[in-house]
Amino acid sequence: MPKKINMADQFRGKKVLITGGLGFIGSNLARKLVEFDAKITIVDSLIEEYGGNLFNIDGFKDRLRVNIADVRDPHSMAYLVRDHDYLFNLAGQTSHMDSMTDPDTDLEINCRAQLSILEACRRHNPTVKIVFAGTRQIYGKPDYLPVNEAHAIRPVDVNGINKMAGEHYHILYNNVYGIPACALRLTNTYGPRMRVKDARQTFLGVWIRRIIEGETFEVWGGDQLRDFTYVDDAVEALMLAATSDEANGRVFNLGGFRPFSLNEMADLLVEKYGGGKYQICEFPADRKQIDIGSFYSDFSSIRESLGWEPTISEAEGLAATIKFYQAHLKHYL
Amino acid sequence: MPKKINMADQFRGKKVLITGGLGFIGSNLARKLVEFDAKITIVDSLIEEYGGNLFNIDGFKDRLRVNIADVRDPHSMAYLVRDHDYLFNLAGQTSHMDSMTDPDTDLEINCRAQLSILEACRRHNPTVKIVFAGTRQIYGKPDYLPVNEAHAIRPVDVNGINKMAGEHYHILYNNVYGIPACALRLTNTYGPRMRVKDARQTFLGVWIRRIIEGETFEVWGGDQLRDFTYVDDAVEALMLAATSDEANGRVFNLGGFRPFSLNEMADLLVEKYGGGKYQICEFPADRKQIDIGSFYSDFSSIRESLGWEPTISEAEGLAATIKFYQAHLKHYL
Repeated sequence: MPKKINMADQFRGKKVLITGGLGFIGSNLARKLVEFDAKITIVDSLIEEYGGNLFNIDGFKDRLRVNIADVRDPHSMAYLVRDHDYLFNLAGQTSHMDSMTDPDTDLEINCRAQLSILEACRRHNPTVKIVFAGTRQIYGKPDYLPVNEAHAIRPVDVNGINKMAGEHYHILYNNVYGIPACALRLTNTYGPRMRVKDARQTFLGVWIRRIIEGETFEVWGGDQLRDFTYVDDAVEALMLAATSDEANGRVFNLGGFRPFSLNEMADLLVEKYGGGKYQICEFPADRKQIDIGSFYSDFSSIRESLGWEPTISEAEGLAATIKFYQAHLKHYL
Repeated sequence: MPKKINMADQFRGKKVLITGGLGFIGSNLARKLVEFDAKITIVDSLIEEYGGNLFNIDGFKDRLRVNIADVRDPHSMAYLVRDHDYLFNLAGQTSHMDSMTDPDTDLEINCRAQLSILEACRRHNPTVKIVFAGTRQIYGKPDYLPVNEAHAIRPVDVNGINKMAGEHYHILYNNVYGIPACALRLTNTYGPRMRVKDARQTFLGVWIRRIIEGETFEVWGGDQLRDFTYVDDAVEALMLAATSDEANGRVFNLGGFRPFSLNEMADLLVEKYGGGKYQICEFPADRKQIDIGSFYSDFSSIRESLGWEPTISEAEGLAATIKFYQAHLKHYL
């Protein structure tokens, strides 16, 4: 087990760039790094359908710099990557359905922009440490469970293919140019500041919105297993990966305490909320084609290499998430 | 072993579109399909640094249609894909070095254009059978030899990452939309009509050019093993994949009779040419970073599924190639 790193020492006074920093995970990361007195610049394009939301930095927005820009703009990015110690590269198109109806936009954001950010770093800041937010989506339908990093990569949608390419670019630039970079394959991350308007980011968002609005929420399928990472744990993994040289050139799965069936998670949500109803639905035809059945990941690699493991249970995490949206739902609709 | 298909019957009168059809493999394919009385349209952009060459269709250019267009142009492609029975999707950027110095162009051709061609097929010709020319380059440095299709995919250059994505798009569109598509992972293909001006397509091209010009050719490294497919065999594989439903949704390695060290291949070339000199060189620093050591592929999957195997030995193939360039070198400089 690697020895415990003091994150506050690691990030104090360091210059940190977060793409997608007004989004769900980026803003939670920024919130943590602000506590550590890091000098943070957030890059976000605030595209309506994506996760960016200015309310996500409410309460600490004066302690960081927000730069509205699109990662697809190579000129802005070429300037913005300069003179930073860390780049958390979290901007992405995350909707699987949108990637099928508009594959070109997905490619622009998840492939071309990634390559152009890496080229910008190569030219203007080759020592910046980059942590890329990948996704378990790239595995596709598992051959075995839990899925470790050696599992075959067989994405079942355009988003998965493009995110796979984006991850590979990062590892390539580490290997060929020595720009220190690594990738985390996030699983179902949830928590305060996630998008709840629709299911573009996570189905849990819509569940929580509906339950708070007093409406029945829909559980598609129900028996499939999934694992869930509370956002604070995901943030911890991002920071560990950033501050570890051992992570360079590597990809790591994140995961949850244990697999939950969707039904079980729905029951837990109702229990934690203290009420609410859901109904089991058939998978819609257009989603069935890209359904992957059960999925949960083996995160022993990051545990052994970086000492990461989930610390916040699904029960605690759901309770905290419900509390956040009970107070702030109107900012997310 | 699948039963032998009569290719002439399969393609007679069929409408065939070949992207990159003025290039090395595309023009050899066109030449064969012309014999079968297929109705061929070639799409090629004749970019100087790529493989397209009008001389490649010399002698049969009146028996097909040439449409100069760039696969990156979605408007032209949306029109051109209509009303064809087969699409051999061979247009690509093939230079590994160029993909590192100009990654964006590689991405435009090998990713974005592929996705837009598939979208064009989905909208305008969803029953067209597509055969995509992939590459063994996507495997990267082998974990074991020979490399079969189950081997991990770890591309070592931008070209490999983008070709990997391009292949995945094809399989995805087969699986999700039912557009029949498959991919062949070509290894070192050689023969008449290959680019010999430089090493952008294959190092064998430069070797043959130099030997005919009476100059010493350079063998980088020398001990690494490679396998070689004569272009007529590659063309046979493309046609088999096109006419087999069993190929749909699958990827197949091609390969050679047996692995050759580069030294051995150089000796064979000198023997077949009846003279010539080469020198062993150290790998240049900029290529060493992306060197993969020995590579040769296991092609038992396509042998079992489609009945393909190499039929033309390296000795025969080199002899035929030398003869071609002795007669026509000036058209390739």
